[in-house]
Amino acid sequence: MVTRREVNLGILSTAASAATATMTASAGFAQAAQPIALPPPAIEAGKSLLQSLEARQSIRAYADRALSPQDLSNLLWAAWGVNRPHDDGRTVPRWRGAYLLDVYLIRDDGVWLYDPKAHRLLFHMAGDLRAQTTTGQPFVATAPLNLAYAIDISKITGESETDKYATAGATAGVTAQNVYLYCASAGLATVFRESVPTSLAKTLNLPAGHVIQFAQTVGYPKA
Amino acid sequence: MVTRREVNLGILSTAASAATATMTASAGFAQAAQPIALPPPAIEAGKSLLQSLEARQSIRAYADRALSPQDLSNLLWAAWGVNRPHDDGRTVPRWRGAYLLDVYLIRDDGVWLYDPKAHRLLFHMAGDLRAQTTTGQPFVATAPLNLAYAIDISKITGESETDKYATAGATAGVTAQNVYLYCASAGLATVFRESVPTSLAKTLNLPAGHVIQFAQTVGYPKA
Repeated sequence: MVTRREVNLGILSTAASAATATMTASAGFAQAAQPIALPPPAIEAGKSLLQSLEARQSIRAYADRALSPQDLSNLLWAAWGVNRPHDDGRTVPRWRGAYLLDVYLIRDDGVWLYDPKAHRLLFHMAGDLRAQTTTGQPFVATAPLNLAYAIDISKITGESETDKYATAGATAGVTAQNVYLYCASAGLATVFRESVPTSLAKTLNLPAGHVIQFAQTVGYPKA
Repeated sequence: MVTRREVNLGILSTAASAATATMTASAGFAQAAQPIALPPPAIEAGKSLLQSLEARQSIRAYADRALSPQDLSNLLWAAWGVNRPHDDGRTVPRWRGAYLLDVYLIRDDGVWLYDPKAHRLLFHMAGDLRAQTTTGQPFVATAPLNLAYAIDISKITGESETDKYATAGATAGVTAQNVYLYCASAGLATVFRESVPTSLAKTLNLPAGHVIQFAQTVGYPKA
């Protein structure tokens, strides 16, 4: 097992080199396109696993305020962050050696992609698309954060169509449960949703072969 | 949030009434068919959630000894136990108000079904079927425990076939991650597997409409 210090050092050293690369690559973009760095995850904080499981629940009423940087950092690291930097090990299992998931953050300030290796947010597109992540649940449009779980189905080969979708679903489910448990651990509110328009992957301009069948709303509980 | 004491009391009172019912129903069965009671889950034990996430990994080498009753209790409660007894709330989300999952335990002493409401094991069938839960991974046949995640696909209505299987996969994935995290928390070894024969649901005599696409091996790590 790696220690928290090793994890943080691994993330920070990756972040430093990635930041350099991004400054070069994104020199032509506007200010809004800059990556957002996240503080290192605070791994010593929060409840025990079993107490988090005891408190796990779905909540659909959210306060109208953004997540703190530390909660957002912990949440995304829990969701599918790097927990064993020496071989890009994550908090979730691989599928035949590959990671199939991308986690998009749909917020009032645009759409962002979580970059686990550098533990930061990459700008994806402008606009408040929160209402477009649901087929009709009003709380989704005003909650501070919706995570969209995009699966690269084209990476899943040698399986029937139904098996591919089962694998895609399992991949989303594993990360969704990490988010549930982090929210239970830290007093946040969340609900895992399949009420996602089939057009969402297209709305987000994802490459062919990527599907989004599940999303998850996150915020602080409404007082 | 309910306290540990409330959870345990809820489980124990359910267990007591269920045990009475079972004694009546199973009077004609042999000794091997009796339910196996589990100790109450020890919710105060183990690592923090975030430390458990840090330690989460897949392990494929197992010691040849059974899980202790307390580890088995904690594991199954974490997997999809009752965490809010007043409304049968679980450590996993419902799908449109329904639970789709059954967790079968395939061990050297037969096949058992986890009964979350009474927190006990129900006898399902005789025989050591561990080797029949894999398409060819040798460690599966000798590890002490394989969990088979059976999903009642017939309960998922109003969706396309691929969406049904995505929902089934997400259901298995959520519980699989609970098992991963409990194992990380308690020093157990586990691996989530899709290397499951398509015939497994038939081998286990499951009703029509039930599918098993994922299994998970659990034990103590090989020294």
